Amino acid sequence: MERDGAILWLTGLSGAGKTTISQQLEHKLRERDRPVELLDGDAIRQNLSKGLGFSREDRDTNVRRVGYVANLLSRNGVIVIVSLISPYRSVRDELRATLNNFVEVYINAPLEVCEARDVKGLYAKARSGQIKSFTGIDDPYEAPLSPDITCHTAAETVDESVTKIMTWLESAGY
Amino acid sequence: MERDGAILWLTGLSGAGKTTISQQLEHKLRERDRPVELLDGDAIRQNLSKGLGFSREDRDTNVRRVGYVANLLSRNGVIVIVSLISPYRSVRDELRATLNNFVEVYINAPLEVCEARDVKGLYAKARSGQIKSFTGIDDPYEAPLSPDITCHTAAETVDESVTKIMTWLESAGY
Repeated sequence: MERDGAILWLTGLSGAGKTTISQQLEHKLRERDRPVELLDGDAIRQNLSKGLGFSREDRDTNVRRVGYVANLLSRNGVIVIVSLISPYRSVRDELRATLNNFVEVYINAPLEVCEARDVKGLYAKARSGQIKSFTGIDDPYEAPLSPDITCHTAAETVDESVTKIMTWLESAGY
Repeated sequence: MERDGAILWLTGLSGAGKTTISQQLEHKLRERDRPVELLDGDAIRQNLSKGLGFSREDRDTNVRRVGYVANLLSRNGVIVIVSLISPYRSVRDELRATLNNFVEVYINAPLEVCEARDVKGLYAKARSGQIKSFTGIDDPYEAPLSPDITCHTAAETVDESVTKIMTWLESAGY
């Protein structure tokens, strides 16, 4: 059944650049005629996880659920890009241990940089208490210990990050 | 992006024969080397819909969610078999209107027959009040008005039902 699908799991803080990188990556892969699907945090919350909140338990349920869907696609030859904060190490490691072709991509930017960008204004709301359980502010983010790929988005351009991922995929034989 | 995927949506009462037919259908399609995925009610509840109950709202959310996943697979060339009571007509019609290659398969058996089979013992529990909101007992089932395929499982063998679906798929060009 395996037909060279993969799960590119982009984890990182809000504002680290996951969405931007995942969209450009999707574009690049489509250009090369690869079947690709992008599962982005917001679309996931809308279509797969309505009703789940941001407790650890709900976040873990969300991550497992997205992993389940990503695996269905990946084992049918699709390169799946997941863009999701997914702050807890243990459930990411669980996916890595149970899913084929799981690639952990750490979108790494310092909290100060993400907060200064604050593209969606969420950090301001979290600081003022309008939003609770916000990763990096009053909820933990557990950085990957040995990610397959790390993109340092405070130091790299988006193009550089995307190229790094594409190069990794090529050298890994995808 | 279309590569001849399809969504075979098996709707019907508990005990009508959805699971049995869907498993045989999956087997037949795999024999023909078609990429196929089976999304069965129980697996769905476990992997996609933990936390959802059996209210109309939750059932509709569940159906839409499964439709979303089925569509991701189908548009990547997979034949998706969904085996789910999905009792409400309007949300099934919504899927039919919005998803490509949606095939409504009505697994039709009289309630009396399903209840007499009672494979999982659920009808007995529903009658005794141990289970609430059980489709056919104290929750409605709205039969399809113009399904693409109907399998009358009280009158047909499983083989006949599966052959009917396979023949339909062939004649529809899948």
